[in-house]
Amino acid sequence: MHQALELASRATMATSPNPKVGCVLVKDGVILGQGWTQPVGQAHAEVMALRNAAAQGKAVRGATAYVSLEPCSHFGRTPPCANALIDAGLARVVAALGDANPQVAGRGFAMLRDAGIVVEYGLLAEQAREINIGFFKRMETGWPWVRVKMAASLDGFTALPNGQSQWITDAAAREDGHRWRARADAILTGIGTVLVDDPQLTVRLPDDDAVQGNAVQAHQPRKLIVDSQLRTPIDAKLFQSGRTTIFHALNNSEREKALQNIGAELQCFANELPAANSQVNLSEVMNYLGREQVNELHVEAGSKLSGALLQAGCVDELLLYFAPKLLGRGASMFALPELQKIAEAQSLKIHDLRQVGEAIRVLARFK
Amino acid sequence: MHQALELASRATMATSPNPKVGCVLVKDGVILGQGWTQPVGQAHAEVMALRNAAAQGKAVRGATAYVSLEPCSHFGRTPPCANALIDAGLARVVAALGDANPQVAGRGFAMLRDAGIVVEYGLLAEQAREINIGFFKRMETGWPWVRVKMAASLDGFTALPNGQSQWITDAAAREDGHRWRARADAILTGIGTVLVDDPQLTVRLPDDDAVQGNAVQAHQPRKLIVDSQLRTPIDAKLFQSGRTTIFHALNNSEREKALQNIGAELQCFANELPAANSQVNLSEVMNYLGREQVNELHVEAGSKLSGALLQAGCVDELLLYFAPKLLGRGASMFALPELQKIAEAQSLKIHDLRQVGEAIRVLARFK
Repeated sequence: MHQALELASRATMATSPNPKVGCVLVKDGVILGQGWTQPVGQAHAEVMALRNAAAQGKAVRGATAYVSLEPCSHFGRTPPCANALIDAGLARVVAALGDANPQVAGRGFAMLRDAGIVVEYGLLAEQAREINIGFFKRMETGWPWVRVKMAASLDGFTALPNGQSQWITDAAAREDGHRWRARADAILTGIGTVLVDDPQLTVRLPDDDAVQGNAVQAHQPRKLIVDSQLRTPIDAKLFQSGRTTIFHALNNSEREKALQNIGAELQCFANELPAANSQVNLSEVMNYLGREQVNELHVEAGSKLSGALLQAGCVDELLLYFAPKLLGRGASMFALPELQKIAEAQSLKIHDLRQVGEAIRVLARFK
Repeated sequence: MHQALELASRATMATSPNPKVGCVLVKDGVILGQGWTQPVGQAHAEVMALRNAAAQGKAVRGATAYVSLEPCSHFGRTPPCANALIDAGLARVVAALGDANPQVAGRGFAMLRDAGIVVEYGLLAEQAREINIGFFKRMETGWPWVRVKMAASLDGFTALPNGQSQWITDAAAREDGHRWRARADAILTGIGTVLVDDPQLTVRLPDDDAVQGNAVQAHQPRKLIVDSQLRTPIDAKLFQSGRTTIFHALNNSEREKALQNIGAELQCFANELPAANSQVNLSEVMNYLGREQVNELHVEAGSKLSGALLQAGCVDELLLYFAPKLLGRGASMFALPELQKIAEAQSLKIHDLRQVGEAIRVLARFK
């Protein structure tokens, strides 16, 4: 199963919105074939493993399949994997955990059992879930897994009082940040960041990442902007590549047309009636992204949008980089309402803690 | 040498201002005796190791002594250890590193060599230095090693806007903080903290620490307060035990007498002439603490004094606890002047990073 999980993690983001799955076929302690999910519309892990065994002339009848997720049972873009395993005459299927997709959940196992195959699951379930954390979140709640990235000084400032923020963290931390961008389906930012930093919102990684087989270069997440009043400039750098969607809360056909003309998609989700001063309804944005099959959403925004997402209960985890520097004063990390008691504070759990370059990297999740 | 370092770290803070040293006597691969520095005025590690061998009836003539620091060569409170090693007829002395004490530096080794003993040093030197980092700092610069402790939320706030700060971190982090207090010779705080929190400034640890042989309960560091205008209340809790010194910058014989009457010691180190608005000269405080043989100084103060110590170049390391909570706004960690460029920021290096209870603990040192 370790091997199956390792294979699953080789699948690129190109499998999204499908989960990343790995499969290993074993008989009498010998590996007969292995495979992992191919880009959307192509073969799933189980079929790849069967093909791999066939290519080596290995007979899989009576073998055990270790899969990192319950084999699918429905005709989607590809035929059900459960059928393929049954047709191949496997004796046993060991899955890390059941699928969260309501079209699959338990049915894949049932199909296999009905065909006389022994089914077990639960092995390394937690690790298997981590690999597809966005997929599970979306299947279970309809919302994507939302990660908010922020870089600050050791004393918690993201910029100097004069606004300067480039660069608080060093190149190693910034590159690590791009690797997190790369695994997301979409990157979200706010109009404030667009106006101040004019970011490209692309994944930019050194070539050796691609050489190492991660092929992350190829995947560019969809770009998303929360821009209530449609202030995004049509010459913003982020329009230079990829697909961009702007969430707004204003009816202004002239601005809308100008942005649509340069290829931007617009979605109006206003908290009240669309008007000047209306704010984007962030819950509606999450509903929309769930419908759009966005599994993992990466947020790189300022304190205002990041704070608003926290307040709206949209955030699953924080990805924080602390540079070992002291700024003393400046912009704080999250704009949140004033608390009266410490017990009222939003509370998290440290999920991962390490040094990246000179900086401290913290991955913290809401409980 | 690993064993010698382990023994050195068993010596309690009661050895201070002497360094903590461990000694292992070995012959033909067999340990004949071992020892570590006893409280001030009592035997040093080398003598303890010789006694330990004698108590077991082991002959040490021709043996090798592994010591974590150069054996002393002068008559202080005890006779020189170098003499004891020579008299015992040792063949070889391997030291982790030379002593920084100008009364010893190199002379211990020279005495040994003159007596025909083979001397080597440099083995695990860095680890040996860490154990006595305050001793080395004081010997080399005349100032103590200064550690500033601070507890903050993940977004860098030490208190809510209403001043509430108890408790941002959980019991595990607070207990860890007390362990750092215990290893210091003195604890420094500012008048702001005294007036707001009325701290005891004592080491309070669970009983099992003493049971585990650390005996940290016994050691209560000296208490120090920076209180320029002599505002410390005579009923402050910190006067309930131990020795307290107040650094001030005001001549006011009435206040001075009142504080002296309850046992406080006063030291006037004014930046200008002592007067209302005069500030304590922190460099003078460091000079004084060096003369007082304070090796390690633990600072638990607010952003103002902590920031002033940083600006005065007095701080060697930061001990930061970040609770996985978001406060959004409140008191910042260090009061520092506004910067115009990020490159001007005080820069540190992460020395140690780990989780303590729910919190993140960072030990960062100035380069």
